[in-house]
Amino acid sequence: MSVAVIYGGTRSNGNTEQLTERVIGEMEAEKILLKDYDIKPIEDYRHHEAGFPKVEDDYKQLIDRMLSHDVVIFATPIYWYGMSGTLKNFIDRWSQSMKEYPNFKKKMSEMQTYIVAVGGDAPFIKGLPLVQQFHYIFSFAGASFEGYVLGEGNKPGEILQDKQALVAAEQMQKKIKKQMMLALE
Amino acid sequence: MSVAVIYGGTRSNGNTEQLTERVIGEMEAEKILLKDYDIKPIEDYRHHEAGFPKVEDDYKQLIDRMLSHDVVIFATPIYWYGMSGTLKNFIDRWSQSMKEYPNFKKKMSEMQTYIVAVGGDAPFIKGLPLVQQFHYIFSFAGASFEGYVLGEGNKPGEILQDKQALVAAEQMQKKIKKQMMLALE
Amino acid sequence: MSVAVIYGGTRSNGNTEQLTERVIGEMEAEKILLKDYDIKPIEDYRHHEAGFPKVEDDYKQLIDRMLSHDVVIFATPIYWYGMSGTLKNFIDRWSQSMKEYPNFKKKMSEMQTYIVAVGGDAPFIKGLPLVQQFHYIFSFAGASFEGYVLGEGNKPGEILQDKQALVAAEQMQKKIKKQMMLALE
Amino acid sequence: MSVAVIYGGTRSNGNTEQLTERVIGEMEAEKILLKDYDIKPIEDYRHHEAGFPKVEDDYKQLIDRMLSHDVVIFATPIYWYGMSGTLKNFIDRWSQSMKEYPNFKKKMSEMQTYIVAVGGDAPFIKGLPLVQQFHYIFSFAGASFEGYVLGEGNKPGEILQDKQALVAAEQMQKKIKKQMMLALE
Repeated sequence: MSVAVIYGGTRSNGNTEQLTERVIGEMEAEKILLKDYDIKPIEDYRHHEAGFPKVEDDYKQLIDRMLSHDVVIFATPIYWYGMSGTLKNFIDRWSQSMKEYPNFKKKMSEMQTYIVAVGGDAPFIKGLPLVQQFHYIFSFAGASFEGYVLGEGNKPGEILQDKQALVAAEQMQKKIKKQMMLALE
Repeated sequence: MSVAVIYGGTRSNGNTEQLTERVIGEMEAEKILLKDYDIKPIEDYRHHEAGFPKVEDDYKQLIDRMLSHDVVIFATPIYWYGMSGTLKNFIDRWSQSMKEYPNFKKKMSEMQTYIVAVGGDAPFIKGLPLVQQFHYIFSFAGASFEGYVLGEGNKPGEILQDKQALVAAEQMQKKIKKQMMLALE
Repeated sequence: MSVAVIYGGTRSNGNTEQLTERVIGEMEAEKILLKDYDIKPIEDYRHHEAGFPKVEDDYKQLIDRMLSHDVVIFATPIYWYGMSGTLKNFIDRWSQSMKEYPNFKKKMSEMQTYIVAVGGDAPFIKGLPLVQQFHYIFSFAGASFEGYVLGEGNKPGEILQDKQALVAAEQMQKKIKKQMMLALE
Repeated sequence: MSVAVIYGGTRSNGNTEQLTERVIGEMEAEKILLKDYDIKPIEDYRHHEAGFPKVEDDYKQLIDRMLSHDVVIFATPIYWYGMSGTLKNFIDRWSQSMKEYPNFKKKMSEMQTYIVAVGGDAPFIKGLPLVQQFHYIFSFAGASFEGYVLGEGNKPGEILQDKQALVAAEQMQKKIKKQMMLALE
């Protein structure tokens, strides 16, 4: 089993990244910072006979890398009570992969997914629609939604004062490690 | 009073657009198709002293146009149980406008907002997190969230079979017209 | 096919009842006002070998009557952002029926369910957790959740000013009638 | 400052109670088991000139006891994706207290509230509408919603296997203690 983190943030070493580091700890994990890549918004060709046209961007390599892992942590700042537009554009493109990617749903169905999300305005309540959205996303894609941490932080570094989120991040690490142990047995 | 529609869709004359046309009817409305413009994802410089760097794209003219109206309908296909990444990127940039735009919150506070959203997978239930997210968005921005229509449609044109959504769209039109009449008095 | 309404309200001819009457119209429907019956709260004996003790109250006859219908409308005022405690006590007892009632899940799986709920504080937003809860309830019980109307009203009679809710109630009636026609074919 | 727990459960020493004990630990707390009292459902007389008629039951003494504390933990099993009907009936009666109780809103506005809820069917997702409902409840009543723990458990004692919930309960205890310390300063 191997772990990837998909970062939707736009700030280096932001609160979301710091909280996610608490989840990762010493584990090996491939980190994909979406902001460093070119990901075009989807154009909806689901109902065209010819299917989706080829898109010249980095999406293909990113989805390849994501699908090569068994545990994927989606880490996003909460912008306007949702995931970043950058992460959303990446996920929107899954509609294309569902049509084109060999075994997309099979690979997703073997994946364990986690959410780490940090916001500045009462994320424990106002982040819940985002959790519910991810639940539907993973459910549709067939992945197993294993857990989420909602952290509070606004200014850089503030997340370190959210003790409950830090503890929950450590618990998430324990859960991931345990499942990796189980998979080895 | 004047009306604008912000379209987040990626397909011309898609289900979302058709349902929104039922809301607009004969009313005059400025239609902004986000997919026809270049909108960069936000880079979070909220906490930099120098503020946000200048971004070369179409955002500035779009937010100008949006803020020149009193009634704004946000119309989006439901992709992966949320607004399109294109629309999200547009809204994410509001964080920049809140810092830079003269009177952004004042203008928003005078705005009446509506949502039209169409999805293929039980939008009456699975679209609710999106409605809740928009509620928080408008609440934070200070706009008055006046109503939403959730329509069901997958293949092009299917929305026309969702009689309840069509009727709800007509009701939305009546409400907008009534409020415009009241504003004239 | 036959229709029942389960009323959770505590006021005769209240806003919820008036809105539900718009759904019923001329249709024949058995109306069950829960407040007129004695329904004890559940005692959780799900994990006792001997099962649930016999309860002396009206629940048994009410669940019999509910299960004799194919279309059931749950009509409740929104008290404190949820269904009334009276209706909740009735539904809590379903856990007992799931253990004891012959074919409870089979009967539920043939049932079409609707919600009519009226509240005084922004029910279009703040009633959504209730809709989501009912979605989970019907999903677990196996019933088919066909639609909901959220109406706004506080003082007696105010619901009649919520034109959108009245129109939505009429649409619900059309849908029920159409499904009854289909069932006859 | 003093702490109360309002238990909505119907089973002695059930999962909810066990998880709540982890929150309480060695703290002094008044425990109110609603199932041991007679609480009549509300009858909605909010709009009657004469107000609510006198109700002969235990509600009055219970609300007195609840309002005499500064920190109140509402602990409920998740029945049918919501609080128990017993707890809901108690909260429904607050509408009466808002009319009659001297300084009800003032007392509520000085209260810190917490939720402990345990369910058997994916409470981390399907318990979220309940959290959102409590958010609206506390917000309307004016209380400060300080945190929640959602635990998973079905058969008696199963909650002890939900390590994340146990850790979150301990964190809740720390938070309560810290706030009590702050209040002493």
